[in-house]
Order: sequence, then structure tokens, then C-alpha cells
Amino acid sequence: MNYCSNCGASVVLRIPDGDNRERYVCEHCDTIHYQNPKIVAGCIPEWEGRILLCKRAIEPRYGLWTLPAGFMENGETTEQAAMRETEEEAGARVEITGLYGLFSIPHISQVYMLYRGTLVDGAFEAGVESLECRLFDEGDIPWEQLAFPVVKETLKRYFSDRRRGKGFPLQRGEIVKHPRREPAGSPQATASEDRG
Amino acid sequence: MNYCSNCGASVVLRIPDGDNRERYVCEHCDTIHYQNPKIVAGCIPEWEGRILLCKRAIEPRYGLWTLPAGFMENGETTEQAAMRETEEEAGARVEITGLYGLFSIPHISQVYMLYRGTLVDGAFEAGVESLECRLFDEGDIPWEQLAFPVVKETLKRYFSDRRRGKGFPLQRGEIVKHPRREPAGSPQATASEDRG
Repeated sequence: MNYCSNCGASVVLRIPDGDNRERYVCEHCDTIHYQNPKIVAGCIPEWEGRILLCKRAIEPRYGLWTLPAGFMENGETTEQAAMRETEEEAGARVEITGLYGLFSIPHISQVYMLYRGTLVDGAFEAGVESLECRLFDEGDIPWEQLAFPVVKETLKRYFSDRRRGKGFPLQRGEIVKHPRREPAGSPQATASEDRG
Repeated sequence: MNYCSNCGASVVLRIPDGDNRERYVCEHCDTIHYQNPKIVAGCIPEWEGRILLCKRAIEPRYGLWTLPAGFMENGETTEQAAMRETEEEAGARVEITGLYGLFSIPHISQVYMLYRGTLVDGAFEAGVESLECRLFDEGDIPWEQLAFPVVKETLKRYFSDRRRGKGFPLQRGEIVKHPRREPAGSPQATASEDRG
């Protein structure tokens, strides 16, 4: 950030009075420009036991597989955002059945909220951001071709819970930055499970 | 938003190529300025059966009672944000025991995430944004003096779950805008409960 979006003057980085963090501040019109984390809302879409994944047609991670998810927009609920992304990326309508994954990724200031969902009618179709969409049995998940650590972590926990057969308790965690990129991309995540 | 925060040129409101929503776009440096919902993270701090509330020393809702909560900052997890806000506003250290309330407020593009927490040592003290902090038994909650509908909704569900004695399943909901401000401020919320 270089300029004030309100008045166009240059901004400076300083701690405002009464605050304890550096912010971009406009000393011309006194606007403080706060920057906050973004929510990525998405879905684990299930149909007859299989999970719908999308092969990315965009960077980053072009050609790798992911769950339908994207930035939540102003004016919608988190559930609406998850359903919208599933429709946009996978052409699928889902009924949300619960929140499953809540993962903070502090080094990129994102919060993932991944809902369990059931396809309404089994129909799906690759959207413009997907090369292909496909339903996968657990044994066919392309574990080494998943786009993001948070997707791998979520699917790993999801199948584990499904095998255990005792429901899907909310999974909370933090995805930490790798010291260096691992070829196989296994995430480090701190685990937490809500037991109500 | 009037000016591009990157280059200082005027921005225009239009739908970028390949998008389906209006964004502030800089036609000088081609930056698209996305605006997304903010997370408000907070806590339902409990100590020996009582709940810690804060009387607001700031606007909006100066002098009304609320749960400690505030905007999540870049570089932290949602749990860290909830603990930080509880320490800043109520001078209390809490151990997080689970996520309880997840409420979208689409008309102001906010998402509340309210965690259950237990005071570590029973100590608390009003922070600079609070006039006073106090532990309340359920029967003493100042229902007509609560600052925000989302706080009233969360506490109502929380005490209901506690009386029922079957744990605290995640509460999801949407806080909708009032046609006009009701004096008693009862929120309209669509309810949802995750059962795992």
C-alpha cells in the first residue's frame, strides 16, 4: 500500500494512537487502513460415498486437484460462499450438512472454512477455473497431486472420521509454513477436535 | 474507495474481465481492489459457572455489555485472536475449549467466531476499551443491555445448551438486518446446529 484509497495522498506505516500495531495511515485525511485476514470458504462435496474434486485451470497450482473453495464475498454468509464456490468451480449444487474444517493459515492471513455437503442431484461440470471435475473413492484420491496442504489435511481427517463411523466432529487447526517446499507437500498441522 | 492504493490514480467501479461482480479497478496500473468480509473473533469466558462480560467504553454501543471480541489481525489464528481480544478487553487469560458460535452478518460483511473458554486463574480487569468487566450468573445477565444481537443470540443458545447438559454443539446462524431498530433489540437469526 502506497497511497490513501480515500484521498490519494501518500500513506505512512506507523502505530496509531491507542493502537499497538503498525498500520498504513494517511496523515492528510487521517484514515487508518486496516488489513485483515480473508476467509476461504469451500466444500467437501460427497455423492454416493465419493468426493468431488476439481483440477485447477488457474495458478497457483495449475493442474493439481483441490476441493471447491474460494474467497468469501461481501454480503453473503459463509454457507452461501461455500455453495457458490462449489457451483462456480464444479457446477454442482450441494446441501450443506455441517462445518467440518476450520484452519487458520497465519503466514498468508487466510482462514479456511470447509463444509461437508451432499450433491443435490449428482450433477457436476467443470467451471471456468477447473480443467476437470471428478468423483473419487477414498482409494483413488490423488494424494500426491493435491493443490494445497489444507486440502490434504482436511481430506485425511475426513476419511479417518468416516472410517471410524462416529460422526464428523469439527476439526480445527493451523497450517504452518514449510521451512522449504517438500516435493510431496505433506502439511504440518496442529490438530484440535471439538467435542462439544 | 476513490484512489488506487498502489499507484494513486482514480479507481472505477466495474466488473473485471472473467469476474461477475463489480470491483474497484485501477485502469492505470490494472490493480483490482477486492473487498472481503472481516472476521470478528471472541470468547465466552466462563469461571465457576459464571460468564465474563465487558461494558463497552467505546462506540458503537458505549455503555452496553458484550462478550470480549474484535477484528482478527493478520498473522494470527482465530483462536489466538479470540484469546488476544479477551486479554485486551477483559484482562483475562483463557483456555479455549471449543468453537461455539459461527454467525454471518452479511449486511455488514462480518463473520463472528465465538469460542468457549475457561479463565486460567479467575483474574480479570477492564481493558482500555471497557468501562467495567464482571462475572454474571445466568439469572443476572443484563439481557436488555447487551450491545449486539449476535451476543444476545450466542448467550441465549449457550445457556440453553448448558441447562440441557448435553454438550455445546457448534451453533451456526445468520444475523439479519432489522427493518427498524427494536428497542429491546431481539435479533432475528436463522438457526442451525451441527451434529457431526
